[in-house]
Amino acid sequence: MRVFIAGIDGYLGWALAQYLTARGHHVAGTDKFLRRAWVDEMGSVSAIPVFSIEERLAAFEKRYGRALDFRAGDLLDYAFLRSYLADFQPEAIVHLGEMPSAPYSMIDQEHAAFTHNNNVIGSLNLLWAMRETCPDAHLVKLGTMGEYGTPNMDIPEGFFEIEFRGRKDRMPFPRQANSFYHLTKVHDSNNTMFACRTWGLRSTDIMQGVVFGTQIDEMGDDPALRSRLDFDQCFGTAINRFACQTVIGHPITLYGTGGQTRGFLPMRDSMQCLTIAIENPPAKGEYRVFNQFEECYTIEELALKVADAAGQVGLSTEILHYDNPRTERDSHYYNPDRQNLIDLGYKPSHDVVAEVKIMLNDLLPHRERIMARRDILVPDIRWNGDRRRSHVINQTVTSS
Amino acid sequence: MRVFIAGIDGYLGWALAQYLTARGHHVAGTDKFLRRAWVDEMGSVSAIPVFSIEERLAAFEKRYGRALDFRAGDLLDYAFLRSYLADFQPEAIVHLGEMPSAPYSMIDQEHAAFTHNNNVIGSLNLLWAMRETCPDAHLVKLGTMGEYGTPNMDIPEGFFEIEFRGRKDRMPFPRQANSFYHLTKVHDSNNTMFACRTWGLRSTDIMQGVVFGTQIDEMGDDPALRSRLDFDQCFGTAINRFACQTVIGHPITLYGTGGQTRGFLPMRDSMQCLTIAIENPPAKGEYRVFNQFEECYTIEELALKVADAAGQVGLSTEILHYDNPRTERDSHYYNPDRQNLIDLGYKPSHDVVAEVKIMLNDLLPHRERIMARRDILVPDIRWNGDRRRSHVINQTVTSS
Repeated sequence: MRVFIAGIDGYLGWALAQYLTARGHHVAGTDKFLRRAWVDEMGSVSAIPVFSIEERLAAFEKRYGRALDFRAGDLLDYAFLRSYLADFQPEAIVHLGEMPSAPYSMIDQEHAAFTHNNNVIGSLNLLWAMRETCPDAHLVKLGTMGEYGTPNMDIPEGFFEIEFRGRKDRMPFPRQANSFYHLTKVHDSNNTMFACRTWGLRSTDIMQGVVFGTQIDEMGDDPALRSRLDFDQCFGTAINRFACQTVIGHPITLYGTGGQTRGFLPMRDSMQCLTIAIENPPAKGEYRVFNQFEECYTIEELALKVADAAGQVGLSTEILHYDNPRTERDSHYYNPDRQNLIDLGYKPSHDVVAEVKIMLNDLLPHRERIMARRDILVPDIRWNGDRRRSHVINQTVTSS
Repeated sequence: MRVFIAGIDGYLGWALAQYLTARGHHVAGTDKFLRRAWVDEMGSVSAIPVFSIEERLAAFEKRYGRALDFRAGDLLDYAFLRSYLADFQPEAIVHLGEMPSAPYSMIDQEHAAFTHNNNVIGSLNLLWAMRETCPDAHLVKLGTMGEYGTPNMDIPEGFFEIEFRGRKDRMPFPRQANSFYHLTKVHDSNNTMFACRTWGLRSTDIMQGVVFGTQIDEMGDDPALRSRLDFDQCFGTAINRFACQTVIGHPITLYGTGGQTRGFLPMRDSMQCLTIAIENPPAKGEYRVFNQFEECYTIEELALKVADAAGQVGLSTEILHYDNPRTERDSHYYNPDRQNLIDLGYKPSHDVVAEVKIMLNDLLPHRERIMARRDILVPDIRWNGDRRRSHVINQTVTSS
């Protein structure tokens, strides 16, 4: 299948290009290398060294025996996007080309506006370019479980049947996102649903949980094929950040009680799920939503799993609670569905500790890179618009 | 009360500045004159002549005995917006500074992207500027009844209590907008709700029906104080367009069956309602939604009311049905609430025919301006991205 990946140089994009190619798909993609620039702006680097795109492409061709069709460019450059899609004629498009950080979007007006412009207009351009050049292609759009927020009821997959004042309808499930980043994903979801209904496009909108992990098996041993792995407060997601903290002996930084519950999944599950979506396209005009995660955990449960894995590889761990820089509930009901992917064959890996042990072993050779940035491991971007570093409010006692 | 109006040179903004000033409020505002440019781009003009801003401001000061605090500028220019709000220190901000046309947003990628940039980033900037300069001010934000779409159930005012799988919560009512313009309003609503919850801003989000009418009593006889009145396919809304068609003997252009049902209100009701919202602010941190319309009508009912009014002023009318350039249901359930404004004292005017007679009399002296653009009265912007003029499919027989 001909698959186009927007954001192919990123954390998931680079892995997906390899996973799909190893399965025999023909992959093309674009990137503007913004993730590299954003992490640099945060005063950080990827814990796993990231090679230049030229080195990545050369290693890719060597391992997979076929070149990756890559053009550097920007989804905001409509003429570029349109002509690339017209040339490649994808059957599926995976949209990973968005700014993915909640704290980054909350820094100030400039970052909030940038996030809206980059994500919402970029995604809008993709819809128009599909309509004009490849209207039968299948858009696999990355949303986030964070679009739903934490309502006091089960979270279905995008839609639900409800009754109100004696009348029934199938309605989109209300979204209550909790950062400007998450809101841009809601905006994109609404625009995509409309484009499917009005133009007959087809899309799978992936409400993905938080991804963690340093690798997938396909990457092999060539360091140029490895994914990036961020640990700064903006682009380091919970488990990835905790693993990086652990390998340098820094306390694991929980925000508030750590009782926030979210869906999580290892990178290998994310690859499996995205591929299931790609290989099982919806009907023309259909807009469907998949909730995509392995399981739900509280952040504190995950910290304890990281501590468990750390103990098994001979590292000791301290878990500290910091005053929460975000405005969010840290104790709430949370029960999202994820049946659509299971029905299509998704087999959740169900072993966070084993995955974290792989991560810790991958990260240990790169301790110096993290150690050199240890002063940025405690967050200072606050949801109220201030910039103030969080302080320790409590400690979780672990057995290790 | 100190009231800031974004979009003060527009159809509603110019009227509201006068209505509020006549009631003793201190009004300031900004505009970038984009509405004038957009209508020009559509090959049209306002049926009622629009005077230059200098002439408008001079006439304003003469009639109301106090100058209007006006600065030309753009909500996308954050430094300008921030410093104007910091200087004026408004108690209320009425946000009328958005591109308000569904067909304009559907023309092509460029117009859809422009609409998103102008509306979503402009509104986002307003939220940030409020947080930084006047966090206690009350944002009266103009949404649209079109945010809700046409669900098969009653439409509450923004929120509803529902039960799903045995659990209850108060949730935002799902939005199913039907053009990129309407979607930008949904995006703005979501962003505003978040800013109230997270930053403690206060906002009344007005889901307004379609406004019609040429004047409010406060404007008096000075032509420089009159509102614009558009009749092109993008900026001419249903009744306004029908009235302009009628005064030149052009058929009234219904789209499809004309069975689409919407909430409508005369400009004088819009002024009354907005003022009620302004003078009854919500609590700090509160985000409330008002559905704002006088009554719901089908488009065909309204065309018949225009024909009735036309007969009373000696004009004959023909009502023709054209193939619908939009993708929308033209037969559907529609029963929105509008109790919040009634509870605060809104008295619906309930006489569309009387209002249309005023309009026809205001428009008759300007027949030549409309007649000169009679070739643009039938729409050609289609929801599928094509540009093709609609053709007649049917005729409604009227008594006149």
